[in-house]
Amino acid sequence: MVIVMKLDSTAAEIGAVIARVQEFGATPHPIYGVERTVVAVVGETRYVDREAFLIMPGVEQITRISAPYKLASRESHPDDTVIRINSVSIGGRELVVMAGPCSVESREQLLETAHAVKEAGAQMLRGGAFKPRTSPYSFQGLGLKGLEILAEARERYGLHIVTEVMTPDAVPMVAEYADVLQIGARNIQNYGLLHAVGRVQRPVLLKRGMMSSMEELLMSAEYILAGGNYRVMLCERGIRTFEKYTRNTFDLNAIPVLKQLSHLPVIADPSHGTGRWDIVPAMALAAVAAGADGLIIEVHPNPAEAISDGAQSLKPERFADLMRQIRRVAEAVDRNLS
Amino acid sequence: MVIVMKLDSTAAEIGAVIARVQEFGATPHPIYGVERTVVAVVGETRYVDREAFLIMPGVEQITRISAPYKLASRESHPDDTVIRINSVSIGGRELVVMAGPCSVESREQLLETAHAVKEAGAQMLRGGAFKPRTSPYSFQGLGLKGLEILAEARERYGLHIVTEVMTPDAVPMVAEYADVLQIGARNIQNYGLLHAVGRVQRPVLLKRGMMSSMEELLMSAEYILAGGNYRVMLCERGIRTFEKYTRNTFDLNAIPVLKQLSHLPVIADPSHGTGRWDIVPAMALAAVAAGADGLIIEVHPNPAEAISDGAQSLKPERFADLMRQIRRVAEAVDRNLS
Amino acid sequence: MVIVMKLDSTAAEIGAVIARVQEFGATPHPIYGVERTVVAVVGETRYVDREAFLIMPGVEQITRISAPYKLASRESHPDDTVIRINSVSIGGRELVVMAGPCSVESREQLLETAHAVKEAGAQMLRGGAFKPRTSPYSFQGLGLKGLEILAEARERYGLHIVTEVMTPDAVPMVAEYADVLQIGARNIQNYGLLHAVGRVQRPVLLKRGMMSSMEELLMSAEYILAGGNYRVMLCERGIRTFEKYTRNTFDLNAIPVLKQLSHLPVIADPSHGTGRWDIVPAMALAAVAAGADGLIIEVHPNPAEAISDGAQSLKPERFADLMRQIRRVAEAVDRNLS
Amino acid sequence: MVIVMKLDSTAAEIGAVIARVQEFGATPHPIYGVERTVVAVVGETRYVDREAFLIMPGVEQITRISAPYKLASRESHPDDTVIRINSVSIGGRELVVMAGPCSVESREQLLETAHAVKEAGAQMLRGGAFKPRTSPYSFQGLGLKGLEILAEARERYGLHIVTEVMTPDAVPMVAEYADVLQIGARNIQNYGLLHAVGRVQRPVLLKRGMMSSMEELLMSAEYILAGGNYRVMLCERGIRTFEKYTRNTFDLNAIPVLKQLSHLPVIADPSHGTGRWDIVPAMALAAVAAGADGLIIEVHPNPAEAISDGAQSLKPERFADLMRQIRRVAEAVDRNLS
Repeated sequence: MVIVMKLDSTAAEIGAVIARVQEFGATPHPIYGVERTVVAVVGETRYVDREAFLIMPGVEQITRISAPYKLASRESHPDDTVIRINSVSIGGRELVVMAGPCSVESREQLLETAHAVKEAGAQMLRGGAFKPRTSPYSFQGLGLKGLEILAEARERYGLHIVTEVMTPDAVPMVAEYADVLQIGARNIQNYGLLHAVGRVQRPVLLKRGMMSSMEELLMSAEYILAGGNYRVMLCERGIRTFEKYTRNTFDLNAIPVLKQLSHLPVIADPSHGTGRWDIVPAMALAAVAAGADGLIIEVHPNPAEAISDGAQSLKPERFADLMRQIRRVAEAVDRNLS
Repeated sequence: MVIVMKLDSTAAEIGAVIARVQEFGATPHPIYGVERTVVAVVGETRYVDREAFLIMPGVEQITRISAPYKLASRESHPDDTVIRINSVSIGGRELVVMAGPCSVESREQLLETAHAVKEAGAQMLRGGAFKPRTSPYSFQGLGLKGLEILAEARERYGLHIVTEVMTPDAVPMVAEYADVLQIGARNIQNYGLLHAVGRVQRPVLLKRGMMSSMEELLMSAEYILAGGNYRVMLCERGIRTFEKYTRNTFDLNAIPVLKQLSHLPVIADPSHGTGRWDIVPAMALAAVAAGADGLIIEVHPNPAEAISDGAQSLKPERFADLMRQIRRVAEAVDRNLS
Repeated sequence: MVIVMKLDSTAAEIGAVIARVQEFGATPHPIYGVERTVVAVVGETRYVDREAFLIMPGVEQITRISAPYKLASRESHPDDTVIRINSVSIGGRELVVMAGPCSVESREQLLETAHAVKEAGAQMLRGGAFKPRTSPYSFQGLGLKGLEILAEARERYGLHIVTEVMTPDAVPMVAEYADVLQIGARNIQNYGLLHAVGRVQRPVLLKRGMMSSMEELLMSAEYILAGGNYRVMLCERGIRTFEKYTRNTFDLNAIPVLKQLSHLPVIADPSHGTGRWDIVPAMALAAVAAGADGLIIEVHPNPAEAISDGAQSLKPERFADLMRQIRRVAEAVDRNLS
Repeated sequence: MVIVMKLDSTAAEIGAVIARVQEFGATPHPIYGVERTVVAVVGETRYVDREAFLIMPGVEQITRISAPYKLASRESHPDDTVIRINSVSIGGRELVVMAGPCSVESREQLLETAHAVKEAGAQMLRGGAFKPRTSPYSFQGLGLKGLEILAEARERYGLHIVTEVMTPDAVPMVAEYADVLQIGARNIQNYGLLHAVGRVQRPVLLKRGMMSSMEELLMSAEYILAGGNYRVMLCERGIRTFEKYTRNTFDLNAIPVLKQLSHLPVIADPSHGTGRWDIVPAMALAAVAAGADGLIIEVHPNPAEAISDGAQSLKPERFADLMRQIRRVAEAVDRNLS
């Protein structure tokens, strides 16, 4: 952090800034120029609150130089984090595909989908047992029953399970059934929940909020890492913009940027990133070409009957076609689809 | 809801749509035109999932006519809701001002601020004991100790207390100390928390998320109302846009729009709406002129020393000046500042 | 501007940065700290291209300290600019109201509106003769005929005329008829047009683009001022965001911010800022309370028959009511409505 | 278009709506339901102004069914438009790469770049002779001199030239030198300019504005097509959002969506779409995988010395590497890089 003092700042004002830096446990390093003084802040700067300096008398501007996240940063951990879940590795050369319905609706629906995505080559099965819904009157998920159905599908098809957890007190229960805990976009800054998943030893798929900056996504990951759970995957799933033709604007820039800023694996969700099944395939391929470590894709045996997200779900046949295309693009960028 | 069928839709497709509407418990009303068929959906439509129809074969487009929120809507409740908390009425002719620091930092800081805002004419005291912070390394609030300090200030100055609750399990504890439970912008779609505050009998100040549409804000209010707690205030606190000169874009359009769509009181937060103390006064006046039922304003005895939000906090003297200006504008729009 | 060098930057890299600053005609001022070197750039910095330094080897980050606009800045011109057009003063204590239809549709429509807005107390008449329309198939304005009708209205009712000019070659013609040249939101970065209006001696009403930052608005004003035309009014008319209930998000924060950054008068356009006639009155009052120097409001004798912008136009009676309310709020913030 | 009448709308109100539809030259088709009447608008609807109905008494809501653009629509022209410029075909199986510096700075700089991009396999050379710059004090381009340098490069290396035109009166001059006229993002709704390029027989590269919806982009294309120039390429170059880590948010969703809505070729600009040279390669590959018909990429022999856009320009070697990667991804999606 560099604190730029005003042209006419006084020695007392500079002294106050220096003292404040020390209070935060960092080391102030004043640079007295002819016209202007600049205070560089070094040492342990992650507890330093930038805002606190903004209105101190004599302060002109503050420039942050190091990132506010540490454990999540590439600087602190130059090598890629590779998350291993049994036979699957996420974050290495292998490309991972997670597929399945938005919601677990019934045993039949889930098992049928699981079978289809397994056949097509997916390694993981997604499906929501607890659903965050905008309306209190919409279907809220099958709950524990849904988790049991997911567990049966795992057993039967050897797929790993990704499913969402919505409240801190449900974390132990969901962790018992799931291989990966999903934190949904709406809960990206639900700190109680981030704390809770930071304390279990289950990998977490952390979805970017629809209005979260990449930095905020990394700060939310930092909450989980700081809790002691180092197996976090970042997920780009589209942000909210003025464009209304698609449900969200899929920010694929985030893939190379997050890979650069952080060592954590990056997963792309073209289903939410577009909201339209007919452009999911093009954007799944684009995400792979952009360097995603994995994809999470909604598949439903009968999208028109889906309780939620039918408009963005692929039918099993279309998904199987897409897997063939994904394989070709993955190879063109030196990735493997096992 | 009106479901517009495609020009070439078949009788079977139309029949399927009709059957689906019935499954949702609503009444389909097909209108067979010469060129095109339209299915109007009447009756109890709030359980009908618009999305579910979007990809049914033969469907061209769907137009929602009634709002997806019911209890929060002006239609269902034409008169303004007036929330009474002892001597204070929110939502009527009276304008209510809530003021205080972002965080409760110490007993001295809070009591000094409470005294100052009381003198200046505020009826309610704000202050955070539990703080949602982007960084896990930032100050997270004094917790229970903070609540006790707030209770002491209430006792001493006769101010009502507004304070944030962040997790479902903390609701009973916070409700014991607070007169109004605040749901922060980051928790606008934390449904576990909305459920929890829907089950207590404490008024709720529900802040619009930085990415929430007005409709989503009303849907989140609906969660609380549907839980049985009818005393909800909506709060506009700025949304996230491309403009970076201010911390947020204060969407004052939301004030008259929310008053039109809903019977719930609308509070404006110019501190977060701007992020800059120097424009807070202008925007506080603007919010009153736009028809806000109340204001929530950050005041700190020494903003430069504030642990959080110093840049948007007013000093007590500036706040007292502002209260005089607010009184004049309130009168010009036929509101009272008691 | 402060150029922060990397921790490991070399003397050669620092030297190259210094040389580059000199090439731009500014004075580099290196500050050699123990850990890090910072190059402050002083003197004539407006020709210095910040971007040019961003990728020079050894550069970590660049912080701009002074604004990139000069003639438009409050620093360069501390007193408010007051624009006088005959008897009307814009930018002083007086509040100016410009009203009229979106488009000049016919002589009758315009004269009827002109009469009504004059009676209600407006000092200026707005009306488009050249209309920028999203569709090539929509009505594009009456052109010269429209200008003649506006001139007749001026003659008859003593109102000053504000009308849009869309192309550089039309500037002389429009300037012959208009008292104020309006640059529309879509042309905010049409530099050929900004150059052209910078060379005439007619006041300009410069509308913020729907995606322009406040800084970009000021930079576009700078184009006009740099051309020699110092009579520029800035106009906030709403920006584009994710919120779709209103046509635009009316960014009233811009009013106090622009007044702080610049000496130019600031006009607010609640008609475009909202897109809905029913909330125009609330937002007109809010804009006055926020400190606007004037308002521009769409009024149409029969909004349902308007060729454009009917949904956001007030009927004359409603406008007359609003003028009475505006007067009260203006007085409450020590402004005059003549 | 479907006009949904209110529950309590009267026969007179319905009659007025019907009459209004006829005034616009379209055919009204009332559908009288038991509860509600709906007026379907058929026939030639492109001149019908949706807004005009919005505030007619008795109207509840209006749903547009057909797109407001016609000539640009896939419906009106089911086959892909393939634009041929001598030996190059744009919009077919072949992938086209346009590369070169942001600005033509000197003969040496341009010829060196032209040679390099030709060697690497680009078919077209980009370079600005007229530059739209946010600041009136920044370099505005070499003008005619720049065009002459571009012509020399074409001659020498057999590259086709893409260059921007900013004002209507410059169109004939630029058209004399350029193979493709570029309309920049800031001029997307500069209708005078769109008219002007609609009247020449030079292909146009139309860049989406940073605030333009896809529909607005297609409407601006419609202006050019309606003028008689059918050779228009649409260009996605990033939109403005809240995310600040990248200069723009590259909306790759637009590629498959525009290909679906329109028959026109779609070009992707990863340089502006990201603003950072280090992620340009990843996003260029993503654009190809998403189905772009071509790429436009900034290349500069010495980005650190570039007058503009250095931060997003690739060095020639990096560009040559990228071309090799592009070739592999193109093949994986069945496209050719000649």
